Amino acid sequence: MTDAGMADPSGRRLRVGLDVGGTKIDAVAVDASGDIRGRLRRATGWGDDAVVESIASAVTALAEESGFALADVGSVGIGIPGLVDVDAGRVDHAVNLGVQSLDLATRAEQTLGVPFRVENDVKAAALGAAALSGVAGSMAYLNLGTGVAAGIVIDGRIWRGARGTAGEVGHLSVDPRGRLCGCGQRGCVETFCGGGALAKAWGRPGALPIRDIFDAADAGDPQAAGLRDDLFHGAAAAVRVLVLSADVETVVIGGGLTALGDRLESGIRAALHAGAEASPFMRSLRLDERIELLPAGSPAAAFGAALVGASITEKEIVPHG
Amino acid sequence: MTDAGMADPSGRRLRVGLDVGGTKIDAVAVDASGDIRGRLRRATGWGDDAVVESIASAVTALAEESGFALADVGSVGIGIPGLVDVDAGRVDHAVNLGVQSLDLATRAEQTLGVPFRVENDVKAAALGAAALSGVAGSMAYLNLGTGVAAGIVIDGRIWRGARGTAGEVGHLSVDPRGRLCGCGQRGCVETFCGGGALAKAWGRPGALPIRDIFDAADAGDPQAAGLRDDLFHGAAAAVRVLVLSADVETVVIGGGLTALGDRLESGIRAALHAGAEASPFMRSLRLDERIELLPAGSPAAAFGAALVGASITEKEIVPHG
Repeated sequence: MTDAGMADPSGRRLRVGLDVGGTKIDAVAVDASGDIRGRLRRATGWGDDAVVESIASAVTALAEESGFALADVGSVGIGIPGLVDVDAGRVDHAVNLGVQSLDLATRAEQTLGVPFRVENDVKAAALGAAALSGVAGSMAYLNLGTGVAAGIVIDGRIWRGARGTAGEVGHLSVDPRGRLCGCGQRGCVETFCGGGALAKAWGRPGALPIRDIFDAADAGDPQAAGLRDDLFHGAAAAVRVLVLSADVETVVIGGGLTALGDRLESGIRAALHAGAEASPFMRSLRLDERIELLPAGSPAAAFGAALVGASITEKEIVPHG
Repeated sequence: MTDAGMADPSGRRLRVGLDVGGTKIDAVAVDASGDIRGRLRRATGWGDDAVVESIASAVTALAEESGFALADVGSVGIGIPGLVDVDAGRVDHAVNLGVQSLDLATRAEQTLGVPFRVENDVKAAALGAAALSGVAGSMAYLNLGTGVAAGIVIDGRIWRGARGTAGEVGHLSVDPRGRLCGCGQRGCVETFCGGGALAKAWGRPGALPIRDIFDAADAGDPQAAGLRDDLFHGAAAAVRVLVLSADVETVVIGGGLTALGDRLESGIRAALHAGAEASPFMRSLRLDERIELLPAGSPAAAFGAALVGASITEKEIVPHG
């Protein structure tokens, strides 16, 4: 890791990055060399005030636990679900956080006296995944969580597109007779490989429904085997879309479902391989060799948020893995 | 049209662009102001030698008919189907031209003594469509011809991607139970809206099968109506993929099927509108307002090839519409 993305002309040494999820905040402090100097997880608050407070307390707790002062923090970057206006530092429609519209950067800056920058969580994670996985050139980060979305990173920079829908592959239909999606369409990629859609289709109680599906499929349950196949099929479709439209070199897969580890990776690889069997063109793309899974517990999302924050003083983020 | 893409430090005034198709070459001469000063169409030869000869004779005939000398030609750009190595000026697998592997730029330069540059035809057309339609920012050019492919242009430059498959949306499957594609997969976008696939599914004789399908559909033929719906559905799916992955602002539609004019455009618009009806998310994208059709007979492909040629002396092509 070089310090290209982390240099801070103001002399403050540390960049804090926060991945703000529906239940918890993952916070890291990154030094000028790009090394992670501290990390902690805190519960996320619900609603505008509680979200701001939980973010502020995550930063102060991180400083305390890691042994640095707030004065050492050059910037805080936040990755947060919802529609983010990066320039204004505002987030809208973060429904899982009880937030309708929040001037997050301004509110957090007023609370802590440190510059904040806000980015959509998947885009921030994409930036972090590109840096941590050492992928140069072009890559997509495919997030398989409750929902499905991707972020595209080209030469170390987030690809924004024209209207902020770059990488929204979760809502492309790949089966006109498929399950109804929460978005209103049928057979969206997300209905195949989104954790929320799969848990709903499974319909049985349990804290870890996707793991239950995999275990039941291993035990011979045909419904579970079908849903597991759907997951592999949907993720493979998302990979194909990203390569055949934006032509990224590598697709890095992250998100909650990566807790399944090799059970997930080998299944997606096999689906890509099987999908290419009849097609010399698809075989020539070698898609099964162009995916990689983030390790479970990877700090990519929070690390990417730190890179987003670092861009307050850097015009361009050019991390080198 | 400004002269940004056409300035020629060598003093030669004109840029020639050739769109080399399976049956004919469309040739234009573009002056330093970006205005088209001459245009003609010639038959394309079959096989390496004949392709080179027909290209050379198209340039000399264009010069003769338009009243300029070869010495006035600063560059010739060629858009040609197949796998193009832009740096080497080579084209491989141009099966419709009987070409396996041809050092086209070198051979043509030896014949005419003018610098040549070669580009994939859809990518060249995308560049020309972006310039002629005056689209700034990001756009995709969706070519509906015998096959289906797209080119992406960002800020006036062709988006190449990692391995040359950017915009290959024709071979994304959108229906696992769909027709078998020439590529070996089922339900590819191209099986829905490629002229070759539709003509094959139609299976009746006629020089203009897609027009026949539209006419028969108008007359109440249910098979024709189904195929026409497929065409609209497939083109709409391609538009969705381009916006939800690369997030281009506008999709400009070109290629042979645009001879159908408003019958095509209104149908694709209606399919996009209908596909968004149940989905507030898709409605918010206003896709039906983000497509436009190239006028029939548009010189976009040859004009784009002229821009490609102009890049011999210009490091970047930045046309302004």
